[in-house]
Amino acid sequence: MINKLVEKIKKTGAPIVVGLDPTLKFVPEHIKKAAFAEYGETMKGAAEAVWQYNKAIVDAIYDLIPAVKPQIAMYEQFGVEGMIAFQKTAAYCKEKGLVVIGDVKRGDIGSTSEAYAVGHLGQVQVGSTLCRGFDEDFVTVNPYLGSDGVKPFIKVCGEEKKGIFVLVKTSNPSSGEFQDRLIKGTDKKAGEERPLYEIVGEQVAAWGAECMGDSYSYVGAVVGATYPEQGKILRKIMPKAYILVPGYGAQGGKGADLVHFFNEDGLGAIVNSSRGIIAAYQQEQYAGYGAEHFADASRAAVLDMKEDIAQALASRG
Amino acid sequence: MINKLVEKIKKTGAPIVVGLDPTLKFVPEHIKKAAFAEYGETMKGAAEAVWQYNKAIVDAIYDLIPAVKPQIAMYEQFGVEGMIAFQKTAAYCKEKGLVVIGDVKRGDIGSTSEAYAVGHLGQVQVGSTLCRGFDEDFVTVNPYLGSDGVKPFIKVCGEEKKGIFVLVKTSNPSSGEFQDRLIKGTDKKAGEERPLYEIVGEQVAAWGAECMGDSYSYVGAVVGATYPEQGKILRKIMPKAYILVPGYGAQGGKGADLVHFFNEDGLGAIVNSSRGIIAAYQQEQYAGYGAEHFADASRAAVLDMKEDIAQALASRG
Repeated sequence: MINKLVEKIKKTGAPIVVGLDPTLKFVPEHIKKAAFAEYGETMKGAAEAVWQYNKAIVDAIYDLIPAVKPQIAMYEQFGVEGMIAFQKTAAYCKEKGLVVIGDVKRGDIGSTSEAYAVGHLGQVQVGSTLCRGFDEDFVTVNPYLGSDGVKPFIKVCGEEKKGIFVLVKTSNPSSGEFQDRLIKGTDKKAGEERPLYEIVGEQVAAWGAECMGDSYSYVGAVVGATYPEQGKILRKIMPKAYILVPGYGAQGGKGADLVHFFNEDGLGAIVNSSRGIIAAYQQEQYAGYGAEHFADASRAAVLDMKEDIAQALASRG
Repeated sequence: MINKLVEKIKKTGAPIVVGLDPTLKFVPEHIKKAAFAEYGETMKGAAEAVWQYNKAIVDAIYDLIPAVKPQIAMYEQFGVEGMIAFQKTAAYCKEKGLVVIGDVKRGDIGSTSEAYAVGHLGQVQVGSTLCRGFDEDFVTVNPYLGSDGVKPFIKVCGEEKKGIFVLVKTSNPSSGEFQDRLIKGTDKKAGEERPLYEIVGEQVAAWGAECMGDSYSYVGAVVGATYPEQGKILRKIMPKAYILVPGYGAQGGKGADLVHFFNEDGLGAIVNSSRGIIAAYQQEQYAGYGAEHFADASRAAVLDMKEDIAQALASRG
């Protein structure tokens, strides 16, 4: 799947993943009205609104981009009905040829991580039958529990040729609270003090070495666009890890900040934008499209983002 | 809800939470057979088996214990059908008067954590209506993203009088890989080096101070029974945090290891056992019950665990 992702990035020329994170305040009124008319102001109504919204956006942009990243929390908030919408969205995007990165940030002790891994990436044994659950192509994984929380995912990645992105340095303002803590020198580099995210990054590189695609590993990393200097260092620590870069656009990351996350060949990173794309019609720049044509606004925003990143990469000299 | 939890622990005399983590290999054949006969070897069949298994165990033990802790991964592995079984289990346990701790280990950037918080503990706005999703009483939270990933949960806890348990030092063998890393002295104690879990523990105490119940905070912590020495230190760092202690029994934690997690008054900790209780009939000690009477075996195992903890607390002098 990492090979497919790289292939699709080359083909589209767009190292972009669109975050399908539909809160109801992004969904245009006419879609909500239709959904609530059919199912009432219920979880089912909310899930229907989200699904219709997603579908229209995907239809408008699927030819431009390699991948989507549905944030499962935005579905999980609507309970079981939301989870149905999550699954429908993931399946629909795959039908459209998109790589689906489930932003689930799971991670637990070994046997429990195994259940998450089979439920999201693999197959679960039911009697003598193998069944597939949410069936994403990649998921994001939280490393706080260490190797035995991450390895069950890697095992399933190996079996299924799928991948993970491990949280290393997240895009949010307080990510430094624990991730930036300076760690006492390890055996490797005694005496030196380095932030926790570097230690996690090294571990990502080690995990990834066990599970390589053609040029990149099935084990990638999440590093926020909001921390370009850290991105530069982490790029070197994890040369074979694809970096999923959130935080572009609405969270404050700019095109010029992104160059450090890429390798020389223009590969190695995929930049996420969520509300910047899916709620483009609510921004001044794209307001002319109007709520009726929200999906066209999303398409325009994808094209602009593609241009912004291409320019930044071209001008890095 | 923390007050209710403390009240129920006092009333039952059992600082015990039973982990409802039903993998199919724990579910007796006769239950699987009936479920598969009705729904086939499908996700729905698996979810039905899990639900019938849970229900029988809860019916057999609900009067003995204050709380249950369903591990959502064990349901999520069965996709949407599994999530329905999770919700049904949580609702049924609440009907029986049990406090429900959703072991979800969620945690994300601010707006996303907010979605998890309303979906699991609070209410979500759909049009002009407020709807409830999974509606647990407590959830577990992963702190790797820092304060802005945790505070949305605390906000909902304040509104709903519910609670969280933040992962501090987890029970698994590799928990030390990042959690035990020695952190360079902070402003508070310059020059001293302390493990990351202590820093997280201090933050738990700080978060918890904003959200107090009668004697304990709505913000608790997870500290594994497998690390009693660390438990001793963390008990002091977070005097007002209830400690959820996994790792007893199957993972290797013993009664005598548990005393450090409790305060002098015998409160302050609640010990989890999962397969030790729910799959008791598969253990030599309770094999006499047979698979038909698996729920009675679970009841016996709860009574033995209660006795084990009571003895350990009595003999600490």
